[in-house]
Amino acid sequence: MGRWVIIATDRAKRPNDFIRQPVPPAAVGFCPFDSGNENKTPPEVLAYRSSGSRDQPGWRVRVVPNKFPVLGIEGDLNRQGDGMYDKMNGIGAHEVIIETPNHALTLAEMPEKQIEEVLWAFKDRVCDLKKDRRFRYILLFKNHGEAAGASLEHPHCQLIALPVIPKRAKEQIDGAKLFYDLKERCIFCDIIRQEINGGARLVIETDRFVVLQPYAPRFPFETWILPKAHESHFEASDAPTLQNMAWVLRSTMRKIDKVLERPAYNFIVQSAPVQEAPLAHYHWHLEIIPKLTKVAGFEWGTGFYINPTPPEESARFLREAGLG
Amino acid sequence: MGRWVIIATDRAKRPNDFIRQPVPPAAVGFCPFDSGNENKTPPEVLAYRSSGSRDQPGWRVRVVPNKFPVLGIEGDLNRQGDGMYDKMNGIGAHEVIIETPNHALTLAEMPEKQIEEVLWAFKDRVCDLKKDRRFRYILLFKNHGEAAGASLEHPHCQLIALPVIPKRAKEQIDGAKLFYDLKERCIFCDIIRQEINGGARLVIETDRFVVLQPYAPRFPFETWILPKAHESHFEASDAPTLQNMAWVLRSTMRKIDKVLERPAYNFIVQSAPVQEAPLAHYHWHLEIIPKLTKVAGFEWGTGFYINPTPPEESARFLREAGLG
Repeated sequence: MGRWVIIATDRAKRPNDFIRQPVPPAAVGFCPFDSGNENKTPPEVLAYRSSGSRDQPGWRVRVVPNKFPVLGIEGDLNRQGDGMYDKMNGIGAHEVIIETPNHALTLAEMPEKQIEEVLWAFKDRVCDLKKDRRFRYILLFKNHGEAAGASLEHPHCQLIALPVIPKRAKEQIDGAKLFYDLKERCIFCDIIRQEINGGARLVIETDRFVVLQPYAPRFPFETWILPKAHESHFEASDAPTLQNMAWVLRSTMRKIDKVLERPAYNFIVQSAPVQEAPLAHYHWHLEIIPKLTKVAGFEWGTGFYINPTPPEESARFLREAGLG
Repeated sequence: MGRWVIIATDRAKRPNDFIRQPVPPAAVGFCPFDSGNENKTPPEVLAYRSSGSRDQPGWRVRVVPNKFPVLGIEGDLNRQGDGMYDKMNGIGAHEVIIETPNHALTLAEMPEKQIEEVLWAFKDRVCDLKKDRRFRYILLFKNHGEAAGASLEHPHCQLIALPVIPKRAKEQIDGAKLFYDLKERCIFCDIIRQEINGGARLVIETDRFVVLQPYAPRFPFETWILPKAHESHFEASDAPTLQNMAWVLRSTMRKIDKVLERPAYNFIVQSAPVQEAPLAHYHWHLEIIPKLTKVAGFEWGTGFYINPTPPEESARFLREAGLG
């Protein structure tokens, strides 16, 4: 809401115009996330297993606390003034979801079932952590490739539980609330309807999800995955939804890998604050940003983005790319 | 306002802990911004000259339209709805301020007088462009080094005049207004007073400026230069202010180059919307971000930043570094 993006059509870019820096296949060598190295991570908080017991091989998906957490789970928030500023202790949780014991697979290459289990791990961890009333927001995200900030190659996602609601989530939710107050409709439900009817920015449609390029994308090939049914909280997703989402996420990553040659990327699940009751005005979704351009002074200083690729063009490239 | 930053002290980083990628000295070769190549740029819109005439050598600072502008100066805004979205034509100005004919100088190395003329060029261009009532916000910024988004090595800054007020500027101004409505004081004036008294985050103080590390910096070594006298619009700065600012900016860049080994960086002038009368609640300033960390999924998705360096430490490093 309130964001303007310059679509610089004079500079319009086709996929081949971006500097290609494919993420190299994962190197062989010691990795703390590999099966057999369970004692090199903090003890697991969740694992789906075919065999073995806690912190032993035999898992399919494994969740462990981050060894270098940015926030700690122990202590009081102790929110207080500091002169004119506010501070509080860095209470939170920072976990790693190890997506597979297979060091070299990417999301685009994993079996659908494997991705489905990763999504179940997302849900299970959020449902567990939200019992702790100190946590107001839980962030699920993935950095893939060094250019996107990943420091380990082994396929993994991250979870951060926060004692405050982060600024962009708050803005998105507040903006959606303004729309709802005016129209008594969810803005995301309206977007889904409009984009399905228009079709120009649509990438994939299933009975439960749409994948699209947003109208004012901040970045080239910015891609959103939205559930068709209105739901404010990701963790409320039921089994058929997670199953379909696994196929949709895998298919989207296959298209992105094909069109952009296995780029580095980030994705993030945008969901409602965990302590809130279901919200009529907010709609969870997943945002994927392939790492194709550098963010320079202009963007971070202004919140105003210059994007050389119209979303209708990027959507067409992705739509026309097969899944193979 | 409303921004929370995690200062991850467990990961606390000294300057030597960052990956050093010093910006290499500018390479020799053809450059459209060099003296003698004036016909390789669009015709100049401003130049301060010692000799020669328009688009000839002899200039000290030269301003030209960007050859690949993200916005065009011609036409009507034609703001309109597009289904549920809004769009308008990309009307604006995009100019390049060539800081010096000397291809290889950096801001830290230039004579103070040269920087003063660059600041005068900033002021002169804003004062000229704001006569065009279509422009509501004018952005002055610099990308230095490839990692910070610079595509040409020759020392230059950029100006973009916009028909809308960008999101972050609006948030900063609205946040400052809330503070003013509550206290009837400018929040930036309060910050300046508090930081001078405290001293822990102060880097440089002159009779007209303070240089400090903000309380909740988004990035390590994020540095702000603020005028002590309350003023909402950069372009209202008088001659003694610009003269002192040149010394302050040069000294700050020398310290940053020394402590962080000539990093890539961005800076941006945060100023009030150009069509507004002087604002009691807003205070222009310059924000410098050395490029030391990658922005990963977490930050762009949330507006919530993780910074491994407490501002008190980075301020101390910069304070203790000489100007030499």
